[in-house]
Amino acid sequence: MRIKAIISYNGASYYGFQTQNRDDMNSIQDEIEKVLSKIFNRKIDIAASGRTDRGVHALGQVIHFDVDEESVDLYKLRYSINCMLPKDISFKEMKVVNDEFHSRFSAKSKTYRYIINTNERNVILDKLVYNFSRKLDIDKIKEGMNLFLGEHSFISFCTNNEGDYIRNIYSFTLEEKDGYLIFEIAGNGFRRYMVRMIIGTLIEIGLGNVSLEEIKEIIETKENRRVRYKAPSEGLYLVNVNYGGEEYDQN
Amino acid sequence: MRIKAIISYNGASYYGFQTQNRDDMNSIQDEIEKVLSKIFNRKIDIAASGRTDRGVHALGQVIHFDVDEESVDLYKLRYSINCMLPKDISFKEMKVVNDEFHSRFSAKSKTYRYIINTNERNVILDKLVYNFSRKLDIDKIKEGMNLFLGEHSFISFCTNNEGDYIRNIYSFTLEEKDGYLIFEIAGNGFRRYMVRMIIGTLIEIGLGNVSLEEIKEIIETKENRRVRYKAPSEGLYLVNVNYGGEEYDQN
Repeated sequence: MRIKAIISYNGASYYGFQTQNRDDMNSIQDEIEKVLSKIFNRKIDIAASGRTDRGVHALGQVIHFDVDEESVDLYKLRYSINCMLPKDISFKEMKVVNDEFHSRFSAKSKTYRYIINTNERNVILDKLVYNFSRKLDIDKIKEGMNLFLGEHSFISFCTNNEGDYIRNIYSFTLEEKDGYLIFEIAGNGFRRYMVRMIIGTLIEIGLGNVSLEEIKEIIETKENRRVRYKAPSEGLYLVNVNYGGEEYDQN
Repeated sequence: MRIKAIISYNGASYYGFQTQNRDDMNSIQDEIEKVLSKIFNRKIDIAASGRTDRGVHALGQVIHFDVDEESVDLYKLRYSINCMLPKDISFKEMKVVNDEFHSRFSAKSKTYRYIINTNERNVILDKLVYNFSRKLDIDKIKEGMNLFLGEHSFISFCTNNEGDYIRNIYSFTLEEKDGYLIFEIAGNGFRRYMVRMIIGTLIEIGLGNVSLEEIKEIIETKENRRVRYKAPSEGLYLVNVNYGGEEYDQN
């Protein structure tokens, strides 16, 4: 039986989602697998929609795992899991899905949020927002956001790994609230560091350090001209992962 | 020359405000004295309006310290201090005051905030609110709050130290917002654990575990009948310390 779970975590105290297979580098995956393995009394491995890096948070990360049981009381299971997990990780929803479902390969789109505080440093939100107390040109930033919309090669906006750099950005919004900038970006997928490098680039645009034309050219050439800007992890949230309709529902 | 500073900190990573004089137990005071001593090139001791316990936050804690210099550029000083401090401690305001001012003894009143999340556990705010996902009787809690208003002996609502237990609570408000309860309590002073024990008592009232009459009696008898309830530190914020008018201004 395959179980899908939507989980939330505060990434401040972890070396990222993925296990590092090291006792001195704790991960969200380690914590969850430890709890599930204890509950089911055998080693349970989980798969996620994708890793999140050290310090990155999640409101709606999705994982799946398989159990041998023929039926499980998901309400009780979720309660037990949440009691045993550290206080900064939580299972929000659980659902039985059919074997076609895979948290990573079935994902149709993802949404990330990035929060910048342009006011004086807010120490209370130290690890939850990027404290960047500088004046930014919001109009320029909004023009910059438009450059990323649609299908592009993001080869210059991620770390240099093999594979396919083409991604489609479906929406990219910015809400301003009391000096906080709240970006939301949705697309069919994101390469490692891609959101943080896009946000980092927008900050440089907002500071006037780089022109819209320059960024437009970097995007359009499709050559690897990796930008040097990467916003820090603490402002980044994986908001949700979308899997389309009901095709994975268990009958 | 005496300098007054208003500071803010996220207490999640510290063993409280006050120095523990131990290398393995960091404190806000240690961090600040380390930075000031480096800047002024001699040992600088600070005094605060009062200690805050492990895990408690401050939006407007007040400290003072003395320097030998005859004039100091406070703008530059604050900038240097904030660059050198850890990211979860910040100097918000600085001001030269006369020698009559003492951050602790001149304080006229203090305001604390306490935040309870009654929704499902919010892991993002893990160390910033008290996640308490239970249904509370808000009307009963409001009646309970009224019992504490005015001058009372708080001998049953603090740890058992020597001294005077009489305190005057000037105001006590509760704002409800999307399942979050935000208490603000102002008074001429608070004994150790007093706010947390008052909030803990209100939670028990809200759960129906203890009656208003019982609490009223405990307050009125003025005997030591210490309540067993103490809300955890993570929901508590020292909001500000009030010193009255301009009588400490440097001429």
